[in-house]
Amino acid sequence: MMRKWGKYLIILFAIVLSACGKPEAKYVFFFIGDGMGPVQVNAAERYLASMEGRNGIVPLAMNLAHSRGNITTYSQNSYITDSGAAVTALATGNKTSNQTLSMDAEHRYPFKTIAEAAKERGMKVGIISTVDIDHATPAGYYAHQPKRSNYYEIGIQLANSNFDFFGGGGFRNITDPKGFDPVNVIDLAKKNGYLYINNATAFNYLEPGAGRVLFVHPAVSDDYAMPYSIDMDEGSIALSQITQKAIDMIDNPDGFFIMVEGGKIDWACHGNDAAATIHDVLALDEAVKVALEFYSKHKNNTLIIITADHECGGMTMGTSYGDSNMDLSKLQWQMGSFMELTREYHAIRKGLLDVLGEEALKADSSWAFDFILTQTGLGDESKGLGFNSYEIKELSVAYSRSFDEKNYNDPYEYIKYGSYDAFMIAASHMLSRKVGIGWSTFSHTGIPVPIRAFGAGAQNFAGYYDNTEVYNRLLDIIKK
Amino acid sequence: MMRKWGKYLIILFAIVLSACGKPEAKYVFFFIGDGMGPVQVNAAERYLASMEGRNGIVPLAMNLAHSRGNITTYSQNSYITDSGAAVTALATGNKTSNQTLSMDAEHRYPFKTIAEAAKERGMKVGIISTVDIDHATPAGYYAHQPKRSNYYEIGIQLANSNFDFFGGGGFRNITDPKGFDPVNVIDLAKKNGYLYINNATAFNYLEPGAGRVLFVHPAVSDDYAMPYSIDMDEGSIALSQITQKAIDMIDNPDGFFIMVEGGKIDWACHGNDAAATIHDVLALDEAVKVALEFYSKHKNNTLIIITADHECGGMTMGTSYGDSNMDLSKLQWQMGSFMELTREYHAIRKGLLDVLGEEALKADSSWAFDFILTQTGLGDESKGLGFNSYEIKELSVAYSRSFDEKNYNDPYEYIKYGSYDAFMIAASHMLSRKVGIGWSTFSHTGIPVPIRAFGAGAQNFAGYYDNTEVYNRLLDIIKK
Repeated sequence: MMRKWGKYLIILFAIVLSACGKPEAKYVFFFIGDGMGPVQVNAAERYLASMEGRNGIVPLAMNLAHSRGNITTYSQNSYITDSGAAVTALATGNKTSNQTLSMDAEHRYPFKTIAEAAKERGMKVGIISTVDIDHATPAGYYAHQPKRSNYYEIGIQLANSNFDFFGGGGFRNITDPKGFDPVNVIDLAKKNGYLYINNATAFNYLEPGAGRVLFVHPAVSDDYAMPYSIDMDEGSIALSQITQKAIDMIDNPDGFFIMVEGGKIDWACHGNDAAATIHDVLALDEAVKVALEFYSKHKNNTLIIITADHECGGMTMGTSYGDSNMDLSKLQWQMGSFMELTREYHAIRKGLLDVLGEEALKADSSWAFDFILTQTGLGDESKGLGFNSYEIKELSVAYSRSFDEKNYNDPYEYIKYGSYDAFMIAASHMLSRKVGIGWSTFSHTGIPVPIRAFGAGAQNFAGYYDNTEVYNRLLDIIKK
Repeated sequence: MMRKWGKYLIILFAIVLSACGKPEAKYVFFFIGDGMGPVQVNAAERYLASMEGRNGIVPLAMNLAHSRGNITTYSQNSYITDSGAAVTALATGNKTSNQTLSMDAEHRYPFKTIAEAAKERGMKVGIISTVDIDHATPAGYYAHQPKRSNYYEIGIQLANSNFDFFGGGGFRNITDPKGFDPVNVIDLAKKNGYLYINNATAFNYLEPGAGRVLFVHPAVSDDYAMPYSIDMDEGSIALSQITQKAIDMIDNPDGFFIMVEGGKIDWACHGNDAAATIHDVLALDEAVKVALEFYSKHKNNTLIIITADHECGGMTMGTSYGDSNMDLSKLQWQMGSFMELTREYHAIRKGLLDVLGEEALKADSSWAFDFILTQTGLGDESKGLGFNSYEIKELSVAYSRSFDEKNYNDPYEYIKYGSYDAFMIAASHMLSRKVGIGWSTFSHTGIPVPIRAFGAGAQNFAGYYDNTEVYNRLLDIIKK
C-alpha cells in the first residue's frame, strides 16, 4: 500500500523538480592537479598515514567527494595528451591537437572558454596557478594560441582578458622575444586596470574593492613558477592563501568562477620525484579545503570540482624491490625537491671542478654520496635507506655519466636518466623504489583521471566520459 | 512559488521513501577482476580502439555503470594486500592478515561470508572463477582457513558448502597431500548431491532441475586453471557461458548471489603480459554483459557490482620509450600468453639441448629470436616492432641468463626477470614497452581500485571507502 503511494509521489516529485529547474551553481571552483592521476593522490594519502606510523591512508579532503567519475584525456591527435590540448578540452569542451591552446587543431578559430562564458554571465573570474601564469593550463582559460609556447602573446591576452584575479607564478616573456611589439605585458595589465602585486606585504594588505589583481608570488624563480611546496620557506604564501585571497577579492552577489591549478605536481612527476609530488598534492588539497570552507557557508549554490588534465610519470604504488608496507615516511628525509637539490649539487660540483679538474673529480664520487645522504637520507641504514653493493654500483655508473649531461645517445640510458642529471635522477629513482613507488616514464601517460565534485550539481560529474564533456556539464549548471 | 512547493514535496517524498524501504536486490552479481586496476581496464578499452585504427577508447560494458567509487585495498598487516586478505574484506567485511582466508588475523574464528548470508536468506549461490576453484578469491566465499594454501581443506569445505553452482577451474588437491584424511574432494561433493561435470557435452546439456552443479572446465591444465582467454581454442567454453549457465541453473523466485572471478587477469599481470591481461579483461566484460542482459529483464531487483581485489603489476599507459599514440593493436601478433609461449619455448630448447649440448646452444640464440618473431611479432619491422641494436643486446643478455633459471642473485636481475624465464620475460617487457605499456612490479600494488555498480541499490557503492565496507553496503540491500 505504502509502496503504491510512494510510486505516485515519485512521479509527482519528478514533475515538480523539473518545474523547479536544475541546481544552479553561482560559485564555481575548478581545481586542476596537473599530472595528478589517482596514484599521485593515493601516495599523498598513504604518506600521511605512514607519517603517523600506521597502515592504510588518511583520505584527502578532495577524495571525500561523494560524486566521483573518470574522464578520458586523449587529445585530437594523440592518446597521450599534453597540457595544452587537455586544458582546451576542460576549458572549452573541444578536442584539439597537442601544443594548441583553446583553438581548433588547424588553428583557424578560437574556442570560447568556460571562464569567458562565466564572465559573459556576469560572474567574476579568478585564475590561479603554482606555475607561470602564462603556462598552458592557466592560459587555456583566457588565451587562444596555435602554440602554447607563445608566452608573450599569451601574456598580452591575459592583460586584455578583463578577468578579475590572477595569482601564482609569473611570466616567461614580459616583452616580445622577437622584438616586434614594444608593449610590455605588465605595463599593459596596469593600463587595463590591474593592480600588480609581487610582494607579501601588499598581498596581505590586499582588500576587497582594490579592483582587478595580478599577483605574482614573491618567491618565483628563474622558471617563473612558485617554488615546490617542499622547497617553500616557512611563512611563504601558499596556494591555499592565494585561493582564499581570490575569494575575498572577487566574492560578489553575481558569483564567480575560480580555477586553481596545482601545476608543479606535473613538474615533480616529470622528474619522478615522489616527495615533491606528494607535497604539492597536499598543497592543492589545502586549497580545496579553503573552497570547502566557502561551500559550507553557501551550500545551495557552490560547486567544487577537482580533476586533472592527465596523469604524469606512470606513478605506481608497488615495485618488485619495494616494501609491501609502502613506508612512505622514509621520504621525510628529503630536504627539497630533486630539481632544487640538483641545482645545489651542480653548484657544489662546479666549485670542486674548479679546484680539482674533471679527471680527479670523476674519480671521486664520495662528495656526491655525502650530498644525497644529507639531503635525502639515501645510504643511511638507520633510516631504512641503506645501500647494497648493487645500488652503490648503480649510483657510481650514474655519477660517471652525469658529466655528459643530457647526452644519452643510448635509448636505454634515456629511459634511465631522461634529460636529467644522471646521478640525481638515479638517486630519485632509488629513493622511490626503496619506499615502493614505481615510475614508467618522464612524460605524461594516457590513463583516464578522476573527477570529483562537491555541492550544487555535483552529481552531474559522476560517470565515465570524455574530458570534453566536462565543459558542457559545467555550462549546464553555472548561473544563467 | 513552485520552488516552495517543491521543498515541501521533497520532505514528503523523503518520508514516504523511508517508509517504503530501501531498494532490495534479489539477484546479485559480484564480479571480481583479480588484479584488475583502472589501467588494466583502460588498456582493454584502448586496445579495442587501436584495433579499429582510431584514437581514444571503446568503453567496456562494465565501465558504463553510472555509479562509481574507489575502494582501498590494504590488508590488516600490509598496505599491499594478497588475494586472501582482499577476498576476506570483500566477502566478509573484515580486515585480516595476508594469506588468511575469511578468518581473523590470529586464526581464531571464521567470518560469515556474504554468500553464506545470502544462503541463509534463502537465495541460491553460484561461485565461478577462471582459476582453480579452491584458489583464494573463490574460496574466500565458502571456506575459512588460516592459510589460503590449504587447498585440500578448502576443497572439503567446498563439498560441504551447500552452495548451488561451482564453475570454472579445478582443484589443486583432491586428496589429502599429508595422507591423513582418506576423503576425496570430488567423491564427497558427489555424495553431497553435486553433479560433477568436466566435459563440454554434459555442460551444454545441463538444464535447470539437475540440482547442484560442480563444473570443471574441460581445458584445465596442470595449474588447474582455465586457459588464458588468449590461449583458448575456438569453441572452448568461455567465462561468459559459465555465467549464463549459472543463471540458468540457479534462477529462482528467492533470488541468487553469483560471484564471478576473472582470476587470470592477476596471473597475466604477475607475468607483466599485456596481451593476456587485455584478453582476460575482455572475457570478464563478456560475462558482465550476460549479467546486464539478465538485469534488462529484472531491473527492479537486480544488482551488478564489478570491482577488483587489488591491482597487480603496476600497469601504466605510457613509457619514456613508447609511442604516445599507444598503438596497442601491435599486441595482436602475440599468438598466446607468455606463460604458454614460455612452455613451448622450453620444449623447443629442451630438444635443442639434447642435440647440441648447453655450450653450443648458449652460443646460438637465433632460434630464440625466430621463436619470438613468429609468436609475438617482435623484431618485425613491417609490424612496427623492429629492433635497434640495444634491444638485440638486451635480449641476448637475457638469453644467456635464461640458462640459470630462477636463480637471479643480483637484486637488479630479480627486478628485471622476477622468477620468470629471463629471455621470455625480457621479450614480454620489450613488447609492452614498444606499445607504450609500463609495469613496475611482478607482484600486487597498493592503489585503490574502482568499484562500479548497476541496478537496484547501485548508488550505495559510489564514493571512496575501504574494501571492508563493500560487505555491509551489500548486506544492507540484498533480499531480507
